[in-house]
Amino acid sequence: MQIERLMRQIQFITEIDKMKQIYRKNVVIGTERNENDAEHSWHLAMMAILLSEYAADPEMDLLKVVKMVLIHDLVEIDAGDTFCYDEEGYKDKEEREKKAAKRLFNMLPTDQAQEILSLWREFEDLNTPEARFAACLDRFQPLILNYNTKGHTWQIPGVTKEDVFKRNSLLKENASELWKFAEELIEDSVRKGFLKP
Amino acid sequence: MQIERLMRQIQFITEIDKMKQIYRKNVVIGTERNENDAEHSWHLAMMAILLSEYAADPEMDLLKVVKMVLIHDLVEIDAGDTFCYDEEGYKDKEEREKKAAKRLFNMLPTDQAQEILSLWREFEDLNTPEARFAACLDRFQPLILNYNTKGHTWQIPGVTKEDVFKRNSLLKENASELWKFAEELIEDSVRKGFLKP
Repeated sequence: MQIERLMRQIQFITEIDKMKQIYRKNVVIGTERNENDAEHSWHLAMMAILLSEYAADPEMDLLKVVKMVLIHDLVEIDAGDTFCYDEEGYKDKEEREKKAAKRLFNMLPTDQAQEILSLWREFEDLNTPEARFAACLDRFQPLILNYNTKGHTWQIPGVTKEDVFKRNSLLKENASELWKFAEELIEDSVRKGFLKP
Repeated sequence: MQIERLMRQIQFITEIDKMKQIYRKNVVIGTERNENDAEHSWHLAMMAILLSEYAADPEMDLLKVVKMVLIHDLVEIDAGDTFCYDEEGYKDKEEREKKAAKRLFNMLPTDQAQEILSLWREFEDLNTPEARFAACLDRFQPLILNYNTKGHTWQIPGVTKEDVFKRNSLLKENASELWKFAEELIEDSVRKGFLKP
């Protein structure tokens, strides 16, 4: 029984190695190589630890935030990465990701499958301080990468300053100091020609 | 003052993007591509969350374990990855890494520089339950990757079953169920020809 539990956990841990092959739209600073989901999730976890003082609710559970950012993109192993400014892709995103969550999380023992599913739903629903801060980081990190790669992702046709402001507006009420910083990065990106006005 | 604090934090967060370009000896499952430190650290953090029940001390602080595995390889941004079976490379590893810690961590505001330095030292010294469990995961994860890539790293001349047992023996007293599992993986790897007896 105990051995079966550990077997399931190891199978899941082996399966999620695939996160290292799910590529995002943005590139790693100083390279032409797209960032993958494992790297992105690690970067967010580091940011959660270093920037938690800027969260609107200082009483939030930091371990929960870290868990959320570590697991928030696991569903992309099956569902793939949906570019945040891709309206077409967003139409069936929820359905694809729900199916992925079911298959992937159920590889784990029931109690852990439920914990991960619950964390992922909480992240998606934005109804708790932890989820909102985790989601702020998920928006702020690509902004930092874009600023340092001459607006790599923003060069995709159709993306404007207005889109980027809208995408990052979650920070306004949930991490106001980070929002001020983000605003300056966006304005400076327009000045430097990284982002269309 | 507050702005200077945030600036330093963002500069550090930008600097550690380099972890995505520090390559380890082992490869990502199903590929010929070496794993990098950011991916490795994410994988360890997921394992910390999913396998904490196997730690020798169930009272340990899980957030601390997660922080440790997230930051344990940051020094490799300057010091590079030292292969665990490279005796020559280990001679000046400590010196190289101490210098790296000084430069990198001091980019942060003093309180955070001290926290990260203290976590890294604790991890290296293996004197607490958190450090020992984090170090167990740092040994167990490459074992799982090697088992699933036909012993990729173990094919390097000179590496034998005895080396791998020795490297993983930390698990014996600090995560005994994982140790039993590791022993079976190693024996099976020898049977399958992934590892020299």
